[in-house]
Amino acid sequence: MTNRHFTFIGGDTGPWRVREIRSIIGPSIAPVSRLEIRNENVSVLPTNARWSFRGVTSNQRYTQRSELNSLLAIQPTLGRQEATCAAFIPLTKTANWWELTQEERRDIFEARSSHIATGLRYLPAIARRLHHCRDLGEPFDFLTWFEFAPSDSAAFDDLLDKLRGTEEWDYVDRELEIRLTRDD
Amino acid sequence: MTNRHFTFIGGDTGPWRVREIRSIIGPSIAPVSRLEIRNENVSVLPTNARWSFRGVTSNQRYTQRSELNSLLAIQPTLGRQEATCAAFIPLTKTANWWELTQEERRDIFEARSSHIATGLRYLPAIARRLHHCRDLGEPFDFLTWFEFAPSDSAAFDDLLDKLRGTEEWDYVDRELEIRLTRDD
Repeated sequence: MTNRHFTFIGGDTGPWRVREIRSIIGPSIAPVSRLEIRNENVSVLPTNARWSFRGVTSNQRYTQRSELNSLLAIQPTLGRQEATCAAFIPLTKTANWWELTQEERRDIFEARSSHIATGLRYLPAIARRLHHCRDLGEPFDFLTWFEFAPSDSAAFDDLLDKLRGTEEWDYVDRELEIRLTRDD
Repeated sequence: MTNRHFTFIGGDTGPWRVREIRSIIGPSIAPVSRLEIRNENVSVLPTNARWSFRGVTSNQRYTQRSELNSLLAIQPTLGRQEATCAAFIPLTKTANWWELTQEERRDIFEARSSHIATGLRYLPAIARRLHHCRDLGEPFDFLTWFEFAPSDSAAFDDLLDKLRGTEEWDYVDRELEIRLTRDD
């Protein structure tokens, strides 16, 4: 059985060099020089870790079959050699969001904010893995990890701008943006 | 902020006397005489605990607004004085279920299995709390806790029979039924 648990560890170890930590909404976190990602629920952290966040990949929440088929046809895998840039985006949604029912959330997420349709337009440039953590008792609801080539950095910025301008983002009450590069 | 985490502990302590543990699908668990439910993620168990399961109450997954309003209008609370009978039902769904998209699961769950509509017909007799645990790395995907008066036991049996006969249950690959009574 695949282990769906991941731990993101900020400190001074790991292959990803932290270039910038920005708070988009809400408080920031301690500065670190490196990020390590482990495919497990880590309980004992490296000595110099300043923070860690845990999340789990899970079943589809909003993506419908036709959308999923479109995504699966063109989405790239993580770990491409040319994808030396990354972004790590921890994000929390408001209590109001979570009190909505599924079809109310889907309506905001896609019918009114085109989250999936917008994301599709940036494929296959940007690889992505979504981790859920709201039910794990973590400080964030979602951790999203993105990888792309340096030449696609401007496209990634554009994707973030588009998403942050949607109605869905009215329901975001904390968001960090951590930009990284991988040592070659 | 409400603590949404619960731990169900089987052993020889707690207000609920275990009357029967039945395996409906898959392996059973160790017999115990008592069940204790704590509203926290318990890490140190009582000395004589034989097993424990953790779950978290969460946002609505399938229930739509009109259905939720119908439920909220008549569903009873847990802890009613007359509700001295309980059932604890840990359940896991198949990998096939979790690979379906949301609208495919909703279609099976309600359009073809009438899970919500059937449940509504047994209100306000039966109180219920659903705990999610698939993403917690637990052995079960769901833990459901039911409370009802002794005079509603036959109705509860009938509800279980109806649900187990639906297409949704084709996707259940492990289910336990633990019946309990509360000391007065």
